[in-house]
Amino acid sequence: MSSTRSTAGRGETRPSTGETRQSTRERGAGTRERGAGTRERGAGTRERIVQQSADLFRLQGYSATGVKQIVEAAQAPFGSLYHFFPGGKEQLGAEAIRVSGALYEQLIPAVLDPAPDPVIGVRNFFAGAAEHLRETDYADACPIATVALEVSSSSETMREACAQVFESWITAGAARHEAASLTPEKARELTIAMLCALEGAFVLSRALRSTEPLEIAGELMARATSDALGQPSGR
Amino acid sequence: MSSTRSTAGRGETRPSTGETRQSTRERGAGTRERGAGTRERGAGTRERIVQQSADLFRLQGYSATGVKQIVEAAQAPFGSLYHFFPGGKEQLGAEAIRVSGALYEQLIPAVLDPAPDPVIGVRNFFAGAAEHLRETDYADACPIATVALEVSSSSETMREACAQVFESWITAGAARHEAASLTPEKARELTIAMLCALEGAFVLSRALRSTEPLEIAGELMARATSDALGQPSGR
Repeated sequence: MSSTRSTAGRGETRPSTGETRQSTRERGAGTRERGAGTRERGAGTRERIVQQSADLFRLQGYSATGVKQIVEAAQAPFGSLYHFFPGGKEQLGAEAIRVSGALYEQLIPAVLDPAPDPVIGVRNFFAGAAEHLRETDYADACPIATVALEVSSSSETMREACAQVFESWITAGAARHEAASLTPEKARELTIAMLCALEGAFVLSRALRSTEPLEIAGELMARATSDALGQPSGR
Repeated sequence: MSSTRSTAGRGETRPSTGETRQSTRERGAGTRERGAGTRERGAGTRERIVQQSADLFRLQGYSATGVKQIVEAAQAPFGSLYHFFPGGKEQLGAEAIRVSGALYEQLIPAVLDPAPDPVIGVRNFFAGAAEHLRETDYADACPIATVALEVSSSSETMREACAQVFESWITAGAARHEAASLTPEKARELTIAMLCALEGAFVLSRALRSTEPLEIAGELMARATSDALGQPSGR
């Protein structure tokens, strides 16, 4: 999924939540915090480490992101990473995935709920993703997919974190389709189909530097949603 | 896309082509070849380096794969990588993407052409991908997608190689839909939609360790193909 409000630029992209704003506000406080060790200040450093990891993973993947780059981006002392994450990069990676997943899950109600009907909601979702991808020079798409493909066969800890995020998105999307009169089974199927189309469109759109795949996938899912609900697709 | 004949296991997965069989046959000859330097033997080493790179990239991505791991897997002297690829890992990566892309493109006619109609062909494609994913313990999916997501914002050389592969797959798929009476525009749209659904289903299926997303995406595309061709979907 794609944040519709974060800004472009490597290392500056931000999902749009209160937690993120707090993280941004606290940036630059790292030097003062070193050695302070109060629970409140420690929490700030921990959040910055998680947030910077999430940003870097989304842009360049898990393997290309070193712990040195993470602590530098978070303006945190090197040892703080292992203080907060004794399991090292893998434990941090799993937490960054869960935090990103929870933040981006908020886009599902934020985009779908205000739409006058589910078909328009689905169209708006893909159109927003395409607009955001263009605005970020094709950099900012899904916070999970790159890492999911990288680690699915090498880290069970991180694969499970990715799986939990996808399941939470499926649950959130399916709840909306159930509210629009679909059976639980059909609501789940339609949501999984939408996530497949969206994730695949991100892969093709980023590689092709074109929003054509997102536009085609959006129309595909608008029609599938319309068919499932037994209503005109609006085109 | 997924090879339907390669075998499971990291470092042993093989696309199913003559070039690959040759590469397999020549494995173990690396030590004897060192310093030999004939064009024929040099070509064997080069092919092994490219093939092993392609295998490792598909399983664990580009960033996690070091040049040391590649030359060891290829049983090639370390210097041979830079001899054949003066541009280093990035040049090798782009070539591995192109070679994998060309090999896997052969699956499009291999699966679609023998089917009695395009809807059954699409169903067979997704069913074969799901079966292969299960057989390889959810490891062997698309040879391009992981790398595409990793490099799209960091290596223009490799992004372009990924884009060329996706465009070649789109062209190959669209040719078949055109032969089934679709306009060039509709044939391209349907093929891009299918690739989006397939690539996204691989992301979710690998993370969830379940073929449910591939099955749902397959049914989605069977219906979309049926709608586009104006024929019953067979269910």
